[in-house]
Amino acid sequence: MSEISIKLGQVIRDRRKSRGLSQEELAFKSGLHRTYISQIERGLKSLTVETLFKLGKTLGARPSELIADTEH
Amino acid sequence: MSEISIKLGQVIRDRRKSRGLSQEELAFKSGLHRTYISQIERGLKSLTVETLFKLGKTLGARPSELIADTEH
Repeated sequence: MSEISIKLGQVIRDRRKSRGLSQEELAFKSGLHRTYISQIERGLKSLTVETLFKLGKTLGARPSELIADTEH
Repeated sequence: MSEISIKLGQVIRDRRKSRGLSQEELAFKSGLHRTYISQIERGLKSLTVETLFKLGKTLGARPSELIADTEH
């Protein structure tokens, strides 16, 4: 569990909530499993850059924005 | 081998060369294996966001810049 995964998980959770999506909806629309989304949001899983792009698409966010938010 | 991995690999290779670093040097300074760097640069390996941050640090680039370059 790294600091980066924890921060990125928070960024993804905040974006998901501000879009009014459930974890199930984010998972389904991104072609991922709901338990995986839950683990990502809690910083328990390392995301690949491919998964970042999939989530960005569903969240209406550029992947680089999600990373920029994680840097801060 | 995804389009994203291929593009990101090119971005990392270009940055490495513009810093005058060999694959060995980039690997060593980032705490990664040289063969892994070679695979990343050829788009054969999916990078995790953690690895992206490590490489960004060695390359003197913000991780979000590396991703922004990959989006284009």
